[in-house]
Amino acid sequence: MMDKIKEIKQKVIESLPKKVKVKDVEFEGPFLVVYVKNPQELANADIVKKLAKDLRKRIIIRADPKSLKPKEEAEKIIRQIVPEDAKITSIFFDEEYCEVIIEAEKPGVVIGKGGSTFRKILKETGWSPRVVRTPPLKSKTIESIRSYLLSVREERKEILKRIGESINRPILHADKWVRVTFLGGAREVGRSCYLLQTPNSKILVECGINVSGNQPPYLYIPEIQPLDSIDAVVITHAHLDHCGLVPVLFKYGYRGPVYLTPPTRDLMVLLQLDFIEVASREGTTIPYESHWIRTALKHCITLDYGVVTDIAPDVRLTFYNAGHILGSAIAHFHIGEGLYNIAFTGDFKFERTRLFDKAETNFPRLEALIMEATYGGSQDFQPSRKEAEENLIRIVNETISKGGKVLIPAFAVGRSQEVMIVLEEAIRTKKIDEVPVYIDGMIYEATAIHTAYPEYLNAHLRDLIFHQGINPFISESFVRVDSPSKRQEVIDSSEPCVIISTSGMLNGGPVMEYFRALAGDEKNTIVFVGYQAEGTLGRRIQKGWKEVPFTVDGRREVVKVNMRVETVDGFSGHSDRRQLMNYVKALSDKPEKIITVHGEESKCIDLASSIYKTYKIETRAPMNLETIRFI
Amino acid sequence: MMDKIKEIKQKVIESLPKKVKVKDVEFEGPFLVVYVKNPQELANADIVKKLAKDLRKRIIIRADPKSLKPKEEAEKIIRQIVPEDAKITSIFFDEEYCEVIIEAEKPGVVIGKGGSTFRKILKETGWSPRVVRTPPLKSKTIESIRSYLLSVREERKEILKRIGESINRPILHADKWVRVTFLGGAREVGRSCYLLQTPNSKILVECGINVSGNQPPYLYIPEIQPLDSIDAVVITHAHLDHCGLVPVLFKYGYRGPVYLTPPTRDLMVLLQLDFIEVASREGTTIPYESHWIRTALKHCITLDYGVVTDIAPDVRLTFYNAGHILGSAIAHFHIGEGLYNIAFTGDFKFERTRLFDKAETNFPRLEALIMEATYGGSQDFQPSRKEAEENLIRIVNETISKGGKVLIPAFAVGRSQEVMIVLEEAIRTKKIDEVPVYIDGMIYEATAIHTAYPEYLNAHLRDLIFHQGINPFISESFVRVDSPSKRQEVIDSSEPCVIISTSGMLNGGPVMEYFRALAGDEKNTIVFVGYQAEGTLGRRIQKGWKEVPFTVDGRREVVKVNMRVETVDGFSGHSDRRQLMNYVKALSDKPEKIITVHGEESKCIDLASSIYKTYKIETRAPMNLETIRFI
Ligand SMILES: [Zn+2]
Ligand SMILES: [Zn+2]
Ligand SMILES: [Zn+2]
Ligand SMILES: [Zn+2]
Ligand SMILES: [Zn+2]
Repeated sequence: MMDKIKEIKQKVIESLPKKVKVKDVEFEGPFLVVYVKNPQELANADIVKKLAKDLRKRIIIRADPKSLKPKEEAEKIIRQIVPEDAKITSIFFDEEYCEVIIEAEKPGVVIGKGGSTFRKILKETGWSPRVVRTPPLKSKTIESIRSYLLSVREERKEILKRIGESINRPILHADKWVRVTFLGGAREVGRSCYLLQTPNSKILVECGINVSGNQPPYLYIPEIQPLDSIDAVVITHAHLDHCGLVPVLFKYGYRGPVYLTPPTRDLMVLLQLDFIEVASREGTTIPYESHWIRTALKHCITLDYGVVTDIAPDVRLTFYNAGHILGSAIAHFHIGEGLYNIAFTGDFKFERTRLFDKAETNFPRLEALIMEATYGGSQDFQPSRKEAEENLIRIVNETISKGGKVLIPAFAVGRSQEVMIVLEEAIRTKKIDEVPVYIDGMIYEATAIHTAYPEYLNAHLRDLIFHQGINPFISESFVRVDSPSKRQEVIDSSEPCVIISTSGMLNGGPVMEYFRALAGDEKNTIVFVGYQAEGTLGRRIQKGWKEVPFTVDGRREVVKVNMRVETVDGFSGHSDRRQLMNYVKALSDKPEKIITVHGEESKCIDLASSIYKTYKIETRAPMNLETIRFI
Repeated sequence: MMDKIKEIKQKVIESLPKKVKVKDVEFEGPFLVVYVKNPQELANADIVKKLAKDLRKRIIIRADPKSLKPKEEAEKIIRQIVPEDAKITSIFFDEEYCEVIIEAEKPGVVIGKGGSTFRKILKETGWSPRVVRTPPLKSKTIESIRSYLLSVREERKEILKRIGESINRPILHADKWVRVTFLGGAREVGRSCYLLQTPNSKILVECGINVSGNQPPYLYIPEIQPLDSIDAVVITHAHLDHCGLVPVLFKYGYRGPVYLTPPTRDLMVLLQLDFIEVASREGTTIPYESHWIRTALKHCITLDYGVVTDIAPDVRLTFYNAGHILGSAIAHFHIGEGLYNIAFTGDFKFERTRLFDKAETNFPRLEALIMEATYGGSQDFQPSRKEAEENLIRIVNETISKGGKVLIPAFAVGRSQEVMIVLEEAIRTKKIDEVPVYIDGMIYEATAIHTAYPEYLNAHLRDLIFHQGINPFISESFVRVDSPSKRQEVIDSSEPCVIISTSGMLNGGPVMEYFRALAGDEKNTIVFVGYQAEGTLGRRIQKGWKEVPFTVDGRREVVKVNMRVETVDGFSGHSDRRQLMNYVKALSDKPEKIITVHGEESKCIDLASSIYKTYKIETRAPMNLETIRFI
């Protein structure tokens, strides 16, 4: 390894202009850090771009600590350089990394056109600037993640160095093959987990829990044992059926990187903490303790969409927008030097929604696609988004006009924000009377995380936020419910209102209290906007049960359901059958092989056979524990 | 483990009559050894049968060493008990095992009707008798295997004990699944290697070399790493594409059992030793040294056809006749208690041949079959055996009548013996004039091994040998060529004759000298009875080349081919297309799934699709490195 890094240092020196004085180079996860004595010489962006191209590596330039301006002086210079309207809220110096972290309301202004302001800061202070957004809503999750990562930054540096060395290890096997083993999520929804393997690398894509939360993927099979033989874990999005068991990997010995987008990291931590909290509150055994969530977090490496990154000796990863939830990604793997390209869609929506652009179809190359099939059945058509919205607005209006309350059970991440945007616009454009929209449960926190990553929202919403100054998430129509007394107030009030609350299937959470209080009155309405699994209270109500059993403080009672019960389809974050088929057609590069997963057995098989018949692409709907070879 | 064996001892005591005094019980590979102070009490066979049934284990009864008669006295008693016509050739006492090994020309007579003589020996001497056949032809291989195993018997006892404990370890995983990973031999002929896996066990079926001898199966994949995580290796037959790399497993850390039939063990050692000898003579790197062949031999556990044996906590193995070569077996695995049954055919012949009965089709239960597809193509029909024999006899007669010599290149194990039997019968029944049939190369040794295992030959041949006193293998028509001078004599003689010699494809061996000497004379004939691979000299001659290049003692020369060149199809040890299809039809239990392997890509696919179309059985023709799940 020493030789390798010496060799790379030599290449760096050769690639850079002679005047640049390279002190050291070092791996940091998938990045190559170049310590320079005179970083001001690198103020020209093209030099670094050329270096990255010459080395085929992602480069971070840092100043040699000796060439750094003292912190107080540097802060003064930064405040002078950065225009006022960037609205800097704090500046923090990280001596370990020779970095200055600038928190600002408008990070783009700190970066400057083409990174010009950034480079000016580097040139004049020696410190490498890193900019983070000051979120308009305070997110406890983001704050505690940031402060935790700062507190472990020395350990993290060691971790990243080790990961970097592993990525850059020599290639041992000359054989060329690519295969995928299905450890979970094949012919089922839940516990997604796939092993992508080459002779030299093992990549675990997803590590989820199943719906009931108690059946893990087949993590004990020899392909991934010992767990530390895995090179990298890649997570497409924060739903627990995709990432719920990542901490378990660490509990049983994994110590490698977890690659995900920045919003996925934050939402994942939020949902994992909630998962074990709910489980321990309900007295079920939890698969891991909270410190394993932190251990996993320490190993997270975030990547934005479109950035090509080495994650193993012969594997490059690029995330693309999946349109499903905030930060959701299609994971595209480039294997070998042009040998093979394979993408995992994760969950994806091939339709523009209120929040996100539709899933990406444009890949440089694509030989194989592993795609979801949740709505892969031949009858799985959903109404259009427009119809769904009109339906929802109509129902809300009808209820309000009678003086009733509308209760919308929703899962914290995804549907909640979608519905919020619809209601906000409807109120703003007077399609609905101005009534309060109460937000209860984890939804508020999840929404706060959305506001921290506006660049992950679609162009329309970004335009609204950045150029028209309208951030629908922080609209005054939304009222946060953050205490039992406040909740009681909402329930007791005689005014009409809308309540969005977790959980989405009425199997726990504050929605239960609202339902119990509101169910008896026929003026009120409950609106289901998401899938209700068999066996949940939500499903029973949806089916028309007029009396439902309830347990309150250990006492059993029966709740009479007199309220209006409505289901509004069309808000799903999953592609329906038509969108799934259209997605395959829209791909810029027609794959040779398509594998269907993340759907009931019949849906995976149906979609696979329809794709084969329609597009003459070889398809398979594998079982868990099977391995398919691609090349 | 101590508790387990105590528990079993208790069960043994409960199952046996009270008067039997059990001293100890011990695992010995898949067997349970019961040491008894008064073995004479077990002279009734039904008691041991009941014990085996109660414990669902294979039982070996041994006397407590203290109850053994002194060796000289015991030998006297044995010679009195055993009838004269058993023709005992030696008696050897193995104190370690409390066994007496009796070598006799007629082992059946030593055993007695229903084992009666056997039990009498046990009862009167205390020593457990084991009988081995005195082969009519001396086999150096068998002799050296016997003496090697005796020399390491203490170490072997330890090995068997360890294996026994491993087989009887508790079952850890409650999951129920069965899957097979293809490490070699899928969509190709050569390097057969399949991993049969359950949540609790890993069984490696075959470990062969490929045709060119330099591409091993994918032994480096994580499913079987470390190699000592494998519970058992099972070998269907001695051809090197099925067992050539077994010693490599030991070289890289495997220390578990190798299950095979007794003839397969002996032929395997013969062929492996020859393989590395030829390779080192030709200067190619050998994959293992000869001591690894001995290490593997030390771990061999032989099983006869039809004997159900525990080989892992949840796997039972039974071998059935495959009709392909001496000792060739179909390996049938019973998994769990009635959970699943899967059989690997290895290479098989579904037609009665001169040597063997046709492959077994009668299995207690069978859900899945992994079958060979060498001749799986829709056009792969072979002439009948009868036609082939008539052809061969005609060609021999035509050549002899002109005073010429017939040269038959043949692989040492399989075709050679088949052709020998045909020629012997033709000479005996005067269909061919009495000419000498010279046997050169490893064929003699392989034939000697055949004579040691007449019970592995078909009923007709056994009848001929045992009841009619005609052992065709030791007919006076056959003359062994065992020195260069003898070979020169054969070549120089002007008399007509038949020469059977290795190698079968004219890529080395003594056949080369015969060919060089005989090719120029048009009176002579070369007859190909086996497949000639592309690129071999055999193939060129078969194609009609009139001049072939030759290297003798480093000098190049050209050999003119004036001799008659003939190919006689129909002697193959593989089932042709019709036989493959008929085999599936003839199975006593129709499997749910059939997997085709051991054939070129097109043949595997063609056979799979024909079986599906004809019998509506789900089929697959997997690729190497793929995994198929069965339940
Ligand atoms: Zn385990
Ligand atoms: Zn999802
Ligand atoms: Zn999902
Ligand atoms: Zn064979
Ligand atoms: Zn074979």
